[in-house]
Amino acid sequence: MEIKIMKNILAANQNKAEEIKKLLSQKKILMINLIGAPGAGKTTLLEKTILSLGKRFRMAVIEGDIATDIDARRLQPLGIPIVQINTDGACHLESTTILKAFDEFDLTDLDLVFVENVGNLVCPAEFDIGEYAKIAISSVTEGEDKPLKYPLLFREAKALLLSKTDLMPYTDFDKTGFYKNVKNINAELPVFEISCKKNIGMELWINWLTQITARIKK
Amino acid sequence: MEIKIMKNILAANQNKAEEIKKLLSQKKILMINLIGAPGAGKTTLLEKTILSLGKRFRMAVIEGDIATDIDARRLQPLGIPIVQINTDGACHLESTTILKAFDEFDLTDLDLVFVENVGNLVCPAEFDIGEYAKIAISSVTEGEDKPLKYPLLFREAKALLLSKTDLMPYTDFDKTGFYKNVKNINAELPVFEISCKKNIGMELWINWLTQITARIKK
Repeated sequence: MEIKIMKNILAANQNKAEEIKKLLSQKKILMINLIGAPGAGKTTLLEKTILSLGKRFRMAVIEGDIATDIDARRLQPLGIPIVQINTDGACHLESTTILKAFDEFDLTDLDLVFVENVGNLVCPAEFDIGEYAKIAISSVTEGEDKPLKYPLLFREAKALLLSKTDLMPYTDFDKTGFYKNVKNINAELPVFEISCKKNIGMELWINWLTQITARIKK
Repeated sequence: MEIKIMKNILAANQNKAEEIKKLLSQKKILMINLIGAPGAGKTTLLEKTILSLGKRFRMAVIEGDIATDIDARRLQPLGIPIVQINTDGACHLESTTILKAFDEFDLTDLDLVFVENVGNLVCPAEFDIGEYAKIAISSVTEGEDKPLKYPLLFREAKALLLSKTDLMPYTDFDKTGFYKNVKNINAELPVFEISCKKNIGMELWINWLTQITARIKK
């Protein structure tokens, strides 16, 4: 499938988040906004998640990146519609560009849209792109203090993926401290411990995602 | 030693970078602006670097963080002057705040100032804070594509630290690909492979830093 590459449209005063929410609600589509640091494992998570969901849902991906289409090309073999947005230096995706990306999809033929935001724990958390849920992803190699140091994302997120758990034995990651920090910022936040590489812990995340997507379709 | 905690002063039109450069040049102080993703190992690098340099230079640290003083407290046992700047949500440090932080130091008694910027590969690269050099740090767990995906930082940096090399055997990090990507963005960029945890590769980095600091003092 061909990848459409778009530029980010910067239009700070033209917030289209509400328009997107209405459109998605009409079409009964769930949109996920995946946010994590550079190298947290966002693309690998999408790859494994889309493969796991298989034929259960009709899916599409919007890839946000500053300068390349590396991630979109990685996902291309999955055979689902992908739009790559290049932000040309900007640190997050905006609703105006997301709405424009929808022109490339057949919205009558979709259940689930994944947005992979620019790798950044700060700015993407500040912008509503009309998503149903922001999902945070943080790898064990980043350390246990991230919820305290980047509180907005962990407060805004509807789920948290603790990724690269296969590396835990080789790091000083303090799991008890991590859960304490998460609780401190957002006591209700569900946490899924996963290793995409070793295929560990994916079922609970896939279950969670399946349930909220199915709820929207009703 | 007591840690002074300051708030970021947002004043986009009041660029003090030139004023800082003049001041540092008069006082013969070298200022390093350390930039990396969340969890790349910036604080650990500072810790090990300051310990290694020992009594060779008189040093100080300016810690940038959105919400906490975790990193400043980690460095406190080193017994050097530390100022913690909390940006209150902002994604980078600005020159106005850096200049203000200097009020807390005795500039006649310093050779080297380390600034640890907010964990973010995008925004901090765009702002001149009057530093002598931006130093990029990227860990092997982030993958080999970061130079391509965040080109500005790798173009602006005067040195690149590839950190957490002790984790290399447990990841799919493509070292040849990494060097190809670095070359593609900035062919002149010196790269130092380090593991702060295992104390591997620190000598070349310390040598490089010692040489440029000594040059400024002349």
